[in-house]
Amino acid sequence: MIKTIAVVRRKPGITREEFARYWIEVHAPFVKECLPGLHKYVLNVAIPSPDGKEPDYDGVVELGFDSQEALTAAMSSPKWLSAERQASSEAFLDLSNIFSLQTEEHVIV
Amino acid sequence: MIKTIAVVRRKPGITREEFARYWIEVHAPFVKECLPGLHKYVLNVAIPSPDGKEPDYDGVVELGFDSQEALTAAMSSPKWLSAERQASSEAFLDLSNIFSLQTEEHVIV
Repeated sequence: MIKTIAVVRRKPGITREEFARYWIEVHAPFVKECLPGLHKYVLNVAIPSPDGKEPDYDGVVELGFDSQEALTAAMSSPKWLSAERQASSEAFLDLSNIFSLQTEEHVIV
Repeated sequence: MIKTIAVVRRKPGITREEFARYWIEVHAPFVKECLPGLHKYVLNVAIPSPDGKEPDYDGVVELGFDSQEALTAAMSSPKWLSAERQASSEAFLDLSNIFSLQTEEHVIV
């Protein structure tokens, strides 16, 4: 499986709880309808480490497709590029502070 | 599920192909025996993006456990802390260039 993995920070001015609630309850159900061919969609919400240190980032998202071509097609789809989808991302993410990586997944366990 | 997610770079001087082969064929089978309670272990190997740009990082690893306590216990285990495991990590990773995040996983698709 080919995955885009993005490491994200929340928009300044919102709490970690508001960020997580919006991501899970509002953004994710909407986004999964915007990406044709999406075969895996996992949100990883940052939690404080056991020593209590605040996380440097607020989460990691995984978007998985059967092939590079399917990934590129999904990211070029009208729904993904729509103003509504972009507004939903801007509502909770610091879009100037995202980095992403294209990867091939190898499941060991 | 509680996951540690680490974004990694390869050790200077090795190719991306050498990095991926060692990670998948040598390091992963060894490491999975070093972490009691490991319920998910996924390697995500970076690939060039469709525009041909070289990736900024070489991979993302996911290590999943049933609870924060299980994760902490695994990372404190003698096998994980052993010189052999550390040597296996040093053989292919740039350990000065790793960052990791503790997360809670939410599977959407």
